[in-house]
Amino acid sequence: MEIRPPENASRWRQAAYRVIFESDTRAGQLFDIALLAAILLSVMTVMLESVQGIEARFGPELRMVEWAFTGLFVIEYLMRLAVVRRPLSYALSPLGIIDFLAIVPTVAALVLVGSRYLLVIRTLRLLRVFRIFKLGQFVGEGEFILSALKASRYKILVFLTTVFTLVIVIGTMMYVIEGGQNGFTSIPKSIYWAIVTLTTVGYGDISPVTVLGQSLASVLMILGYAIIAVPTGIVSAQMSGAGAQARPVFKQVVCHVCQAPDHRDDAEFCWRCGEKL
Amino acid sequence: MEIRPPENASRWRQAAYRVIFESDTRAGQLFDIALLAAILLSVMTVMLESVQGIEARFGPELRMVEWAFTGLFVIEYLMRLAVVRRPLSYALSPLGIIDFLAIVPTVAALVLVGSRYLLVIRTLRLLRVFRIFKLGQFVGEGEFILSALKASRYKILVFLTTVFTLVIVIGTMMYVIEGGQNGFTSIPKSIYWAIVTLTTVGYGDISPVTVLGQSLASVLMILGYAIIAVPTGIVSAQMSGAGAQARPVFKQVVCHVCQAPDHRDDAEFCWRCGEKL
Amino acid sequence: MEIRPPENASRWRQAAYRVIFESDTRAGQLFDIALLAAILLSVMTVMLESVQGIEARFGPELRMVEWAFTGLFVIEYLMRLAVVRRPLSYALSPLGIIDFLAIVPTVAALVLVGSRYLLVIRTLRLLRVFRIFKLGQFVGEGEFILSALKASRYKILVFLTTVFTLVIVIGTMMYVIEGGQNGFTSIPKSIYWAIVTLTTVGYGDISPVTVLGQSLASVLMILGYAIIAVPTGIVSAQMSGAGAQARPVFKQVVCHVCQAPDHRDDAEFCWRCGEKL
Amino acid sequence: MEIRPPENASRWRQAAYRVIFESDTRAGQLFDIALLAAILLSVMTVMLESVQGIEARFGPELRMVEWAFTGLFVIEYLMRLAVVRRPLSYALSPLGIIDFLAIVPTVAALVLVGSRYLLVIRTLRLLRVFRIFKLGQFVGEGEFILSALKASRYKILVFLTTVFTLVIVIGTMMYVIEGGQNGFTSIPKSIYWAIVTLTTVGYGDISPVTVLGQSLASVLMILGYAIIAVPTGIVSAQMSGAGAQARPVFKQVVCHVCQAPDHRDDAEFCWRCGEKL
Repeated sequence: MEIRPPENASRWRQAAYRVIFESDTRAGQLFDIALLAAILLSVMTVMLESVQGIEARFGPELRMVEWAFTGLFVIEYLMRLAVVRRPLSYALSPLGIIDFLAIVPTVAALVLVGSRYLLVIRTLRLLRVFRIFKLGQFVGEGEFILSALKASRYKILVFLTTVFTLVIVIGTMMYVIEGGQNGFTSIPKSIYWAIVTLTTVGYGDISPVTVLGQSLASVLMILGYAIIAVPTGIVSAQMSGAGAQARPVFKQVVCHVCQAPDHRDDAEFCWRCGEKL
Repeated sequence: MEIRPPENASRWRQAAYRVIFESDTRAGQLFDIALLAAILLSVMTVMLESVQGIEARFGPELRMVEWAFTGLFVIEYLMRLAVVRRPLSYALSPLGIIDFLAIVPTVAALVLVGSRYLLVIRTLRLLRVFRIFKLGQFVGEGEFILSALKASRYKILVFLTTVFTLVIVIGTMMYVIEGGQNGFTSIPKSIYWAIVTLTTVGYGDISPVTVLGQSLASVLMILGYAIIAVPTGIVSAQMSGAGAQARPVFKQVVCHVCQAPDHRDDAEFCWRCGEKL
Repeated sequence: MEIRPPENASRWRQAAYRVIFESDTRAGQLFDIALLAAILLSVMTVMLESVQGIEARFGPELRMVEWAFTGLFVIEYLMRLAVVRRPLSYALSPLGIIDFLAIVPTVAALVLVGSRYLLVIRTLRLLRVFRIFKLGQFVGEGEFILSALKASRYKILVFLTTVFTLVIVIGTMMYVIEGGQNGFTSIPKSIYWAIVTLTTVGYGDISPVTVLGQSLASVLMILGYAIIAVPTGIVSAQMSGAGAQARPVFKQVVCHVCQAPDHRDDAEFCWRCGEKL
Repeated sequence: MEIRPPENASRWRQAAYRVIFESDTRAGQLFDIALLAAILLSVMTVMLESVQGIEARFGPELRMVEWAFTGLFVIEYLMRLAVVRRPLSYALSPLGIIDFLAIVPTVAALVLVGSRYLLVIRTLRLLRVFRIFKLGQFVGEGEFILSALKASRYKILVFLTTVFTLVIVIGTMMYVIEGGQNGFTSIPKSIYWAIVTLTTVGYGDISPVTVLGQSLASVLMILGYAIIAVPTGIVSAQMSGAGAQARPVFKQVVCHVCQAPDHRDDAEFCWRCGEKL
């Protein structure tokens, strides 16, 4: 993202930029944490409002809190626009769009009736939680997991293709075997059942009744139980490998006298000839 | 498979062979992708037809689409037969049989009534999806997973034997303990329950009611929870190991005298004949 | 087990011993496989008899088959006793007891009525299936898995203790929170529920209804989801390690000329100086 | 914990301290095991009392047993106070508080009616079970698992944050899609459902009914099935790594000049002061 402060910006503006957009200063970190708390609390308000008992008793209060948070987010959004060098490029960035959409639902609720669907957008703001991973220790760890997943992306795709093919073929088989009277009313529904079974979720809302169906289901379960080993193996192997490479235990220097490599990170003398490094 | 183009084939025929059967040319890749899209869409048509609401409204249209795809697949099948050197050996190969069977159901539906069962064959065509793994990056990854599974096949067999023995013994126990009045109406059904439980699917269509039954079920669940570690461990270890072996530990040369491969990276003499490499 | 053929045994007896008790001869392997098939078929007979529809129609036939197998097993048992040097030590060994008990149920059914419980013993004979792992390739693999589990036994015990403590503490909490009216009628039943939940089986026969109960259940599920990583990690690490140690890729000799180590298992010449090893 | 015996304590007191608080003597180990047995039995008593059938028949006996154990624990608690150098610091330590609270419920039941909730505290005493891991072989193993988990704590936090965000976002979506008439009566309940699904528990008390809901649920299940690979991978890699680091890469000597430990296996000079080892 090309989000940077205006070049010939005033002092105040540059300082504000660092606080709002970056987290390498103390003020910037506090801002991030305060924002995170506000997001969590606003999401919690949305949740509580959806509970009938609580809505009936604390409805007006909750809506007031909601408006307060919306106000805060509007101010934050405007500040971001004011402080950034290219407001439009921020506004069109994924986070910018989420920031904007997070304000809409409360306002839209005044006009529209079916604003229920906008609720989801509000919770999407939670994605900002991942900003916190920019702080300190987390950078490396988050990147580690992501890079392990990224390095395994082709293996994961092969895996997912196998899973989907399996689920479609067995789902169709079950539709033919069990049929509508046992809950397998259509192929898509049978595939849904196959996914529920293969992933070992097993709601039990649909379950095979005939002997043949139960046999095929048993095969699918054993397969699901065994197949889970594959993604786990992929990620484990990747992480073991990535971990091995990531270990910065040794200095990147060789002894200038005997050329010995692999000195401890905190070594001051060569382990082979005793020369000062 | 001995599927190759006719030796003294015409130019056109050889070109067509490369497009239809291979994927090392641009045209061949496009053909593969188009075929894949056609398969996915035809499977989707089959699925939608099985949904009553959609069938009622779009029945005729869906059947038309079905016929169109069947036409396409007939043409593709005939082209394959025409282009290949030994049509019979293609027709009898697994993919050839699937290609043929994929055409049958739509045609058979005109004559037979119980062609419902032929639906499954149609979805089997999905197996062609795995052809895409021949493209580019996937070759290595797919082979990697397969070779890891292959290298672990004896371990997996030992594992599966243990699982099946466990499931039969505990299934029989539950049949004796719980009996028909609690849903465990026969030993096969009790074994089905044991598989549902061991694999942690847990539909809940059958579940133990007596104290003894629930205790035994608890043991089975803990076992299932622990046993899952075994296939995962097998595949993880294999993949870590396979990755380790894939590292260039060996020279990429063979001895010019005895053709022995796999020399140490730092070897200067052949391990088999002692000749200078 | 001190099961060996009589020392000054007749030729015939020694040959019979090798066939019946060992599997390093072709005849011995055939005997093992035939026995295995008989066991599998007899277990299948027991299963089919428990299905009401089949029992009603093929009852007499199945019972005949049962008697035939029992006859076979009696003969086998007597032969084992006749051929072995110390019949008593065989008869009292675990496999000997199972062999004996496997005959009892069919005979006992003539006298006793409640012989239903003896069914379980019959299926226990399945444990003989594991004898097949003595054949060929399986020896190493089975031992590999067992040794990995054995090496991890303390870690697994720590793991199981944690699981049981967790399940008892949270089970008691749920009993207090939800109470009998929501299905948590006693602490043992609540613990049963906790096991069903932690192992991610989730029958749904008992499930929390109150908000507090569902919150605690959520915590338990996330815990269960995370805890599964521990046994998997234990076994994976063990197998990777065991695999690394088990690899006998290199010869245990050094070159007598240049002292170079790590020669290929099949190397005849030193990779460094080309000298004959 | 600053729990040590009185400095100028009498012989008897010091001996008692070693028996009660430590487990490096035979008497101390026996005391630990006896205590553990008492705890397990008392927890079992609590469990049995909660079963109506057993309570009705053996109520008075069970309550007598309960009083006996409470008496034992009171004596143990007083002994601990008497023997330790700083009774207050013991009494306020986590284990001290649990020891105290474990006595309260039985006594409180005489006065209060709603002492039901105190049951949970009684089972918390089970945490003392982990003391047994101080004995022998277990120390290393328990520490190994804990250190592997500790080293992975940031990765686990990133993982949990992802899981919670996912669950909240998808839970809200399902609330909007399915609505109250299909069981998704509030956002918290929908989130509970999302956790039940993602962790593959799948009770089936709430399950999607609409096509859109079932599709989203399928996505969540596949995600849950794949996501489980991440914690497993983390712990596996950590354990493999921890195992790798535990191998004797380092010399078992410290520098005789500067006492620096952890010298390379082949080091001849100290890495800190350059002295000859």
